[in-house]
This record gives sequence, C-alpha cells and structure tokens, in this order.
Amino acid sequence: MVEGIWRVTTFAIVLIFVCVARPFTGAADAPDRPYTQAATDIVREALCFPSAYAMLQDLTAVGPRLSGTPQAETAVQWARRTMVDLGFDNVHLEPVQVPVWVRGPVERAYALSGRKIPLKVCALGSSAATPRGGITAEVIEVHSLDEVRRLGDVAKGKIIFYNRPMNPSLVTGFAAYGDAVDQRGRGPTVAAQAGAVAALVRSMSLTVDDHPHTGNTSFADGVAPIPAAALSTLAADTLERLIATHRGLRVSLELSCRTLPDAMSANVVGEIRGAEKPDEVVVVGGHLDSWDKGVGAHDDGSGCVEAIEALRILRTLDLRPKRTIRAVLFMNEENGLRGGREYAAAERSEKHIAAIESDAGGFAPRGFGVSGSPETVARVAAWAYLLTPIGADRIVPGGGGADISPLAAAGVPAIGLSPESSRYFDYHHCETDTIDKVNPRELELGATAMAILSYALAQEGL
Amino acid sequence: MVEGIWRVTTFAIVLIFVCVARPFTGAADAPDRPYTQAATDIVREALCFPSAYAMLQDLTAVGPRLSGTPQAETAVQWARRTMVDLGFDNVHLEPVQVPVWVRGPVERAYALSGRKIPLKVCALGSSAATPRGGITAEVIEVHSLDEVRRLGDVAKGKIIFYNRPMNPSLVTGFAAYGDAVDQRGRGPTVAAQAGAVAALVRSMSLTVDDHPHTGNTSFADGVAPIPAAALSTLAADTLERLIATHRGLRVSLELSCRTLPDAMSANVVGEIRGAEKPDEVVVVGGHLDSWDKGVGAHDDGSGCVEAIEALRILRTLDLRPKRTIRAVLFMNEENGLRGGREYAAAERSEKHIAAIESDAGGFAPRGFGVSGSPETVARVAAWAYLLTPIGADRIVPGGGGADISPLAAAGVPAIGLSPESSRYFDYHHCETDTIDKVNPRELELGATAMAILSYALAQEGL
Repeated sequence: MVEGIWRVTTFAIVLIFVCVARPFTGAADAPDRPYTQAATDIVREALCFPSAYAMLQDLTAVGPRLSGTPQAETAVQWARRTMVDLGFDNVHLEPVQVPVWVRGPVERAYALSGRKIPLKVCALGSSAATPRGGITAEVIEVHSLDEVRRLGDVAKGKIIFYNRPMNPSLVTGFAAYGDAVDQRGRGPTVAAQAGAVAALVRSMSLTVDDHPHTGNTSFADGVAPIPAAALSTLAADTLERLIATHRGLRVSLELSCRTLPDAMSANVVGEIRGAEKPDEVVVVGGHLDSWDKGVGAHDDGSGCVEAIEALRILRTLDLRPKRTIRAVLFMNEENGLRGGREYAAAERSEKHIAAIESDAGGFAPRGFGVSGSPETVARVAAWAYLLTPIGADRIVPGGGGADISPLAAAGVPAIGLSPESSRYFDYHHCETDTIDKVNPRELELGATAMAILSYALAQEGL
Repeated sequence: MVEGIWRVTTFAIVLIFVCVARPFTGAADAPDRPYTQAATDIVREALCFPSAYAMLQDLTAVGPRLSGTPQAETAVQWARRTMVDLGFDNVHLEPVQVPVWVRGPVERAYALSGRKIPLKVCALGSSAATPRGGITAEVIEVHSLDEVRRLGDVAKGKIIFYNRPMNPSLVTGFAAYGDAVDQRGRGPTVAAQAGAVAALVRSMSLTVDDHPHTGNTSFADGVAPIPAAALSTLAADTLERLIATHRGLRVSLELSCRTLPDAMSANVVGEIRGAEKPDEVVVVGGHLDSWDKGVGAHDDGSGCVEAIEALRILRTLDLRPKRTIRAVLFMNEENGLRGGREYAAAERSEKHIAAIESDAGGFAPRGFGVSGSPETVARVAAWAYLLTPIGADRIVPGGGGADISPLAAAGVPAIGLSPESSRYFDYHHCETDTIDKVNPRELELGATAMAILSYALAQEGL
C-alpha cells in the first residue's frame, strides 16, 4: 500500500510538472512580444484541462435545437446555468422572438420512370407543405436561377430541380458553398415566381452519399411559399440520369412541414467584466440553435462551447482583462438571424470594440478572417505571433459570421475563426453532424485561439 | 430525349467550364512568381479529377501490409502495376531483404487482484512470445527508462509497466509522441537488461479508449528479447488504479508471436524522367508496409498514394520537369527501415537533389518541414507562395521522414509533408487506422502539395 501510494504520488508529480507548474524562468515577455506568457499559459491550461468537448457532449445530448423547439429552450437554460456555474459575470438572457418552422413526419419523393424510384429528400426550412398525398408533376433540371427565369411559361406547374454541384475546384468548403448556395437560398422563390409547384435542390455537399442536407430557403415578400426540399447528392445524381433518359419525367413529392406562430426565445450572455474599461466590449460567440437534422455538433455547438471555454480558461488563469470579454450565444442563426439582429439593435451604453464568431466547425483552427479597414486587419495580424504555437496564425482580410454581421453593419470590426474546412460540408445541416465527427483536441484548440485573440484585443483595444 | 441530351450537354458544359478549361487570360507568371500557373493547374486537376482516394481504397483493400506477409507482396505488385498503368517511366522493383515478425493468435493479459481483470493488449513488433499458458509475475509501474535502471534487483523476475502518458500540453501529436515513445522503442530492452520477464507499455495515444496501439520495439544487441506488449490507454488506467490499491499486484500475460527467417520484398520505384537533367532526382515517397492492426490507411497508405498521385497529376497536365521526379514506395519502415537503408545504399550514377516524404497521415496539409542548411530551408520557403492557395505554405526547419533519413544522412536535403496532426495518433498503429478516417479532399490536397513542391524543385534545383 505504501508502495502504491508512492507510485500514485510519483505519477501526480509527473502530471503536475507537465501541466500545472508555471515556468520558473521568471522571464517577462519581450517588449515587442507582449502577452507571450499569457498565451503560453492559455495553451497549457486548455490542453491539460480541456472542458470544451465535455460541454459539447452536454449540449448535443439536448438533441437538435431548432428555434422555438423545447430543445432550443433546454439549450438556453443549459448555457445560462453553465455560465453561472463557471462564475461568469452578468449572466443573463436577452429575449428574442423567433420563427417556428417544424419538419413534419412525412418527407418522401419518387421519380416516376415506369417504376417508382425513391429519392432521399428533406424539406428545406421555410418550405410549405404539399397537400396530403403529395404533388406530382414533370421535373425540369436547371443549373442556375437565371435558367429558371428564362424558362417562361415552361416552368408553370412543374417541379424545378436545381442541380449545379458545389464547385470542387474551389479549395475551401466555404468558397464552394458560397458559390452554390443561391440555389437553396433563393432558388425556390425564383421557382415560385416562375409558376413552379415545387422545388428540389441538390444538397450543398461535395460528397456523394444518401444524406440530404437541409438549410433555410427565403421566400421573397409577396411570394407564397411552395414545397421545397433538398435531395441527397446521390438522389440528385439518380434524378439527373433518369431525366436524361426519360422525356417528361414526373416526380412525386410529399412534405408535411408547418410554420407555427412565432415564439419567445433568447440569446445567452455572460462575461468577464473588464478591470479598467468595462464598457468596452469584445464579443466572442456562436449560435445556440441548430438544424433539426443531426444535433449541430459542428454547426454550431462547437462555436458555443469554444466561446464559453475561452472565458473559462481566462478565468481559471485569473487573466482579468482590461476590457470586458463577453460570450454571446445567439439564437436563430439558422432560419432568421433574429438573435444577431436583436443583439445589435439593443440600446447599450457600452461600446463594442470587436466581435469574434466561431461558426465554421470545431475543426483545428488555422487562423482568423477579419472584416474592417486595412488598418484593422493589420492590427489583428500583429497578434499572429501569439497564435503561431497552435498553428492558428493565418490572419486574412474578410471574415466574421452571420450572427455578428449586424454588429459589423454598425461598424464593429468582425472576426471569424477559420478552422480547417475540408470536412465541414460533409456534415453541415445534416443528420451526420454529430459529436463523433468532432475531435476533442481540435475543438479545444479552437477555444484556445479564441481565448488568446480576445484577451489580446481586450488588453490593447483595436 | 432531345431535351434530355440538351440537359446533359448543359451540365457537361458547366463541369468543363469549371474544371477543364484553362484560363483564357493568357497571362504568363509574374517574373518574381514563377510556376504560379502550373500550381493553379495542379490544384484544379487534383480537385476536379482526384484519384488519390480511389487508389487508397485499392491499397487498403489488400489488408494489413506488414513486411514479409503475402499482403505486403500484393501491395508491391499493386503499386508496380498502378505506376505502369499510369505511364510512369522506368517502373521497377528494388529488392529488399526484410525481417518477418508475425503476431500470433493468442494475445491476452489479466490483472490478478483477487478477480481476473482482463486488460486489452497487443504484442509489440519484435516481441518474444511467452511460454504457452503465459507468464505471471508482479508488475512494477514506472514512468521512465531511468526509473527502471534505478530499480536494481527489484526488477528481476517482474513485469515492468511503462505508464508515462503522452504529454497533452505539447500542441502537435508528433511532439507528444516523440516525447513518450522511448518507452515503447527502448523500454522493453531496458527492462530485459534489468532482469524483468516482460514489459507492458501504455499505448502511444492521447485518447483514452480500449484499442491498443502496436509499434516496434528494439532489443539491443546481446539482449534476449522478452515478451513486450502495448496496453490500451484504458487498460493502462485500469492497471494503474489496481496497482495503487493492491500491493504486489500480479499480472498474467500470454503472447504467441514469432520471428521467422528474413524474406525478400521490394521498394517500388517509378518516375517522370527529367527533360533536361534526368540524372538529377527529386524523390517523393511514403512507405508501403503497415502494421498488422488496421490497414495502414493513414500510416502510410496515404503517403504512398499521395506520391503516386503527385506524379499522375504532373503527367496528366504534361508538366514535364527539367529534372527527374521519382516516386519511391519504401518497404519495411515500420520494423526495420530496410527499404530506406537499401535505397540510400544502392550504387547510383545519378544525384539526389531532394527527398520529400509523406508519412504523417493523409490529413489536410499545412506545410513542409525541411532538414538541411538554413539556406536550404530558405530556398524551399521561397516556394511558399505556390502553396498558399491550398493552405500548405508553413515551411519550417526540421523535418523529413524515417525512410529518407538514410538519404539525409548522406547529405540529401530531406523534406517532410506536415499535415494537420491532431487526429493522427488516435489511429496510429491501431486497428482503427482504416480508410473511413481519411477525408478524400484532405488526402488529395496532400498529393497536390507534393506535386507543386516537387515540380518547383525539379525545375529549379535546390
């Protein structure tokens, strides 16, 4: 037993030496490299005593968190309680009225090519339902919104099938997504304007598999919503082949989704109050709502726990910043952006000096994108040396996040965490966006990057 | 039908526009940015018409490829045939005599704490077998080789259990691995020298799960091998707890592995012959053998197919280099390095100007590590602008790969591809190193980085 205790003690000493002991060199930061020691401490705390993944386990255990659902409310309460338990300052909810769109139990499509060939589909957010029993109509394949506008009367009574794949030659997933997503976002409204009875959209993904990826579609004012659904990329390829060989191919589509009255929800806010200039605020955030497919582990559970974890690390290390660092977990990014708009519109006596969002997945961070003047970008880039040890020092112009875009529109410099992006759109808005796709250390490094940059900004301003 | 054909044609035009058409700007490279157009073409070819993942499917379908096994021989033939089919020049095998160590059907361990508590283990490469029925002895937990050396007679007749975890505070997986792997590589020989009857080693992984990770152990000349096995990290934690509470805890270990006589195998070589200086050679490579757990998808199937794919891309684009670019798929990196040694020792009339190895997983590339003089590092770093579009422009001093280390020892600049490393040691030398852990686009970007850098080096020398 004594021997056993001795061994445990030895092991504890090893761990303490590695993870807890501050360096004894006593060296201060080099004058041209401020906060080097703070950044080193942040990295050690994060990697030795990580909490982000455990928080993500809790958050994703809530289930899908679409705005207005009981799960979204549970997530709000979880986030508030977590911030309170961690001792954050000024933890509170800021009410947000959110749209409520609910996927129905029925989602099915068939190509009618003699045989009834099933096609994996899911309704897009804001889609109308079909009548019970579905609608059946000829399908027209297109590759752009303009192609629909040129169809004229040909579109009337038809189902429009948007099938332009994400461009594989664009290196980042986000570039390829941005290049293709007009088909999902505005394609159905253009189809409705042309007289189509429904719209199908090839899933926004570079993989070919049988998982449809949902996402919101926006119907313009005065345009009555039509049924609109995403096809899995495999189903889109199948439909493409059938259309090529079956003139006048008809598709049957049934969706039972519904739009309910708006509901009340909230942004969740907590902070580390600035010691010297508490009314100057650096926001770090993500969005708490998710699509109803999967559990939003990457989109954007990761961003939420990274924001909380960034503040936890700073608090644990007693790195009290001069300015306030505030975690904001926004509600309703996915189908309304009401949380981001509400946050920016609120009357506040304080001044936001920067907002950092993580909404690009919980993958290994590569750097930050910065929206603002060239001087602003240069000032952020000047902190890159603090991020080099974790490989997150790629500071490029352009970036931010949907939730902080209303702040950016009001002149606040907006900064987006840029993780490795190759895998993100394999899971985005899909039932496969589950926690097993998140690597604990990659996630923690994202939080680490947020902690380091927000701390430097809170010390020095921007 | 006509309409169908029109649609197919439209779609084909879309794809051709995106993926095939060269830019029509006619702009030559800026004088200070040579090979920009070539790099752009390489990226487009790779991302639009990728082959690396399909090759990796073929290679991993062979199964585990430990040196001297029929699967390793099948892999050699697959690689040779693949290079021939792709039209590489001078495709041939270079014979290598390899050690043959075979895992037996029996691998089991129990802690005997009153109850018989099973511990997941697997033999380390080069391990001796236990007698049939196993060996049972008291276990001593240690955290370093020096601790064993200090045990004196206490070690005699005992089982030594190396249990120093990989250091989580080191940011890259490779740093943490390098810091801990002496326990696996030399721990068993030190234990044998101290009179221990067997050695157990905590798996080299930062995750806590029940998958033991194998790897080679080296017994020094004159030291008779003892049974040596890796414990899963979960089993190591279990054993640690039991030792802390059970004085004189005994462990029973049974392994039925065997060392057979050496066998003949081969390195697989193919190239694009240089148009102007064919006798100056840039090697790109990986190793064809793998451990017998899993199928070596990341380690190092990925490196092999990246090397082949790099040459395929250059050939497809008709980018004939001035100097020869040679793919070398080395045999026996895992338990002998015979292929790398044999390749470097062979009499050759040609001159190697650089060697690039990919043996750090098929994850998204972040850059290259370069071993050589500061001038050599600077010359490689000068090509970083070609790698920036794919995010692989982090050129740092130090790097290479085990297979090219004998070339490096002979003065050839050695360069290692550096992918994102957070996930690598979750799968390394483990049954979980399977193709589902590899992302097709990340893998292809690795091949792209190898193609770009090898082409620039072959054009301009180093």
